[in-house]
Amino acid sequence: MRTATQLAEDYIALWNETDAARRKSLLAKTWTSEASYGDPMMKGEGHAEIDGLIAAVQQRFPAFRFSLVGTPDGYGEVARFSWALGPNDGDAVVRGTDIVHRDGDKIASVTGFLDLVPATA
Amino acid sequence: MRTATQLAEDYIALWNETDAARRKSLLAKTWTSEASYGDPMMKGEGHAEIDGLIAAVQQRFPAFRFSLVGTPDGYGEVARFSWALGPNDGDAVVRGTDIVHRDGDKIASVTGFLDLVPATA
Repeated sequence: MRTATQLAEDYIALWNETDAARRKSLLAKTWTSEASYGDPMMKGEGHAEIDGLIAAVQQRFPAFRFSLVGTPDGYGEVARFSWALGPNDGDAVVRGTDIVHRDGDKIASVTGFLDLVPATA
Repeated sequence: MRTATQLAEDYIALWNETDAARRKSLLAKTWTSEASYGDPMMKGEGHAEIDGLIAAVQQRFPAFRFSLVGTPDGYGEVARFSWALGPNDGDAVVRGTDIVHRDGDKIASVTGFLDLVPATA
């Protein structure tokens, strides 16, 4: 079974993938078809809705990329990891922590929390 | 509806309650009857099992108390907070972060993660 770190790396790669066809392929490979995503600002269910959320975030922050922060951990069917969003060569603008419930090697649900948000948000 | 902080305070009070009758009363008041609890070391479902987990931790660490760390946050049906376990007058020995799914004012599930564990654990 994929480790929490591998799951997190797949997840970050998906959020950074700007090619819609490759994003859909990654979703099919690494998320269950009924998967759900929720954070304080948005939520979606199923690949099409989740893909829409990712595309919207990429459009809002076109010059930014997601990266993993620290070491993912997990046990049983859950995993936890933290991430940062910011310009490649600058400080993170947003940070968060995601809780994943997995179904084998696929993500079944994500519950996201924000750890750092811009003062103007 | 109770805030994430109130929910977290109720939760910490339950873990610190050593009187079995009062613990059962707190569980009935603040957790749904089918509630589940899971962390890297143990899991349980329903008030009787969860009460057993709490009692076992209290027996293992009789001189320790739980306290909240930082500010709980949440949105919709989820809440997140961090806690410490240690002697009243000393440094925390264990720290963790719990993710709560709520059903109104009651806890429906807890997914716990450990942030600090003793080097000998």
